Amino acid sequence: MTATILDGRALAKTMRAEINEEVAKFKEKYGVTPTIAVVRAGEDPASVSYAGQIQKTFEKRGMNCVLHVLPETASEDEIVQLVAKLNADASIHGIMIQEPLPKGIDEGVVKAALSPDKDADGVHEVNAGRLAQVAPVGRPEGVGPFFVPATPAGGMEILRRYGVELEGKHAVVVGRSNIVGKPMALLLMRENATVTMCHSRTRDLAAVCRQGDILCAAVGRGKMIKGDWIKPGAVVIDFGVNFDEEGNMIGDVDFEEAKEVAGMITPVPGGTGPMTNIMLMKNVLEAARRQVEK
Amino acid sequence: MTATILDGRALAKTMRAEINEEVAKFKEKYGVTPTIAVVRAGEDPASVSYAGQIQKTFEKRGMNCVLHVLPETASEDEIVQLVAKLNADASIHGIMIQEPLPKGIDEGVVKAALSPDKDADGVHEVNAGRLAQVAPVGRPEGVGPFFVPATPAGGMEILRRYGVELEGKHAVVVGRSNIVGKPMALLLMRENATVTMCHSRTRDLAAVCRQGDILCAAVGRGKMIKGDWIKPGAVVIDFGVNFDEEGNMIGDVDFEEAKEVAGMITPVPGGTGPMTNIMLMKNVLEAARRQVEK
Repeated sequence: MTATILDGRALAKTMRAEINEEVAKFKEKYGVTPTIAVVRAGEDPASVSYAGQIQKTFEKRGMNCVLHVLPETASEDEIVQLVAKLNADASIHGIMIQEPLPKGIDEGVVKAALSPDKDADGVHEVNAGRLAQVAPVGRPEGVGPFFVPATPAGGMEILRRYGVELEGKHAVVVGRSNIVGKPMALLLMRENATVTMCHSRTRDLAAVCRQGDILCAAVGRGKMIKGDWIKPGAVVIDFGVNFDEEGNMIGDVDFEEAKEVAGMITPVPGGTGPMTNIMLMKNVLEAARRQVEK
Repeated sequence: MTATILDGRALAKTMRAEINEEVAKFKEKYGVTPTIAVVRAGEDPASVSYAGQIQKTFEKRGMNCVLHVLPETASEDEIVQLVAKLNADASIHGIMIQEPLPKGIDEGVVKAALSPDKDADGVHEVNAGRLAQVAPVGRPEGVGPFFVPATPAGGMEILRRYGVELEGKHAVVVGRSNIVGKPMALLLMRENATVTMCHSRTRDLAAVCRQGDILCAAVGRGKMIKGDWIKPGAVVIDFGVNFDEEGNMIGDVDFEEAKEVAGMITPVPGGTGPMTNIMLMKNVLEAARRQVEK
């Protein structure tokens, strides 16, 4: 038995075409170009490369991307002041702060300085709070509009587009970061899945993983999750981005083993990764819509 | 085998004595009386009675409780304006808005109007967001100071004072309200438990409950959780407040059955209930401290 591949690359291609159309309509209707500002301090190579990717993909869709680079020596105050300036700039609809920030900078302070309305990657405490408090699907939300971090939003979009039913299913999320694991758990529960949140202190992780009808991995350890950790037929969403000794990108799940057990699985690369930029674009387009229609 | 009773009433008594001392020291040091404002619209009998309890218990500790009652016909604007006035009043350190609010009032709007710094019951989206984002115990928190809803905070305090180890344990939380279930799940995970969040759409709830080394019930259905749903030796925390046909208060757990299986269990009444006011007082005292020391 070989699992159906959840093809994030193909899905991203489809969605880029959808976004092209949405952006064109938006610009025609409002005469405004949805714009993201990306803030970086220092020249971390992965951040430089990621910023380039964001710029390229936004511009191809007809959106703007403005890059603000501060020196590695920038102070917390300087970064916060830049964020405040971008908050106040009506031509900027979404802001993303790239990590890592230089040593000694309190990321919590910088994130809290963002306007929640321009928080393109859903990292602000108000957006996290609304996600935590929002009612399950089908009921009045009970909270204001919010943004969800792009990576788990992409995982959810894959599940949705492949028609994976979540209600009443047991979802197991491994990893509890603020940017992937915790929001993914809350998003799955919002869709009426029963959710188990696992992490580095979980005992007998293999046995817990084997309970998952849906298994989501966001731990950052290459091939940690083995084939026999997976319930036969389960849907596996792998958020891992790791590199093996030869420099090949690998997921948190041992794909070769897992694909013989799972019912559906995201490959790495080509699974959740390509969806992250897509959801970031959708967040910025939505932010622009909210700001223009306000 | 009969379970150890987690005696919330006795613990609350001990803690009231502790709070008496803390309040006395605080007043001596700062010349300020920690004060809660309770806001109600209408005369819901349970709310009237609860407000009376809060007033009595705060005043016995040497704190103040100011009750603001608006008519059942109060508009959202009127309630929000009252909250804004209390936010700006330096003599008020904590604010609690009693539910239910009159029909047609958006609770989300009223809660969001609270100052997060005076949010005595941890219902504001910023406090929910910080709880969702805070790092596990032992690491830098990564978020600003926050308040946790009093009911789950009381459940955690019982676990702590009875020396229940949480790290690596499997905790099952039944119910996903914003005021009990969800914050309890996040608090347990923060203490390094593996946490399963269950709710009305969970399939085979009995089997999921039986996995819990710690089982927390917050569903609002009397005696729903039976003895054979409980793992032998488990610690059971019952947040239920229900009434049987004779008007007796009963929990979500069938206590008579459960106490023969569980290792430790909170009774209802006399378990988590008496701890809620205690934690509310601790929140207000902490709010006063933060405001005075600012």
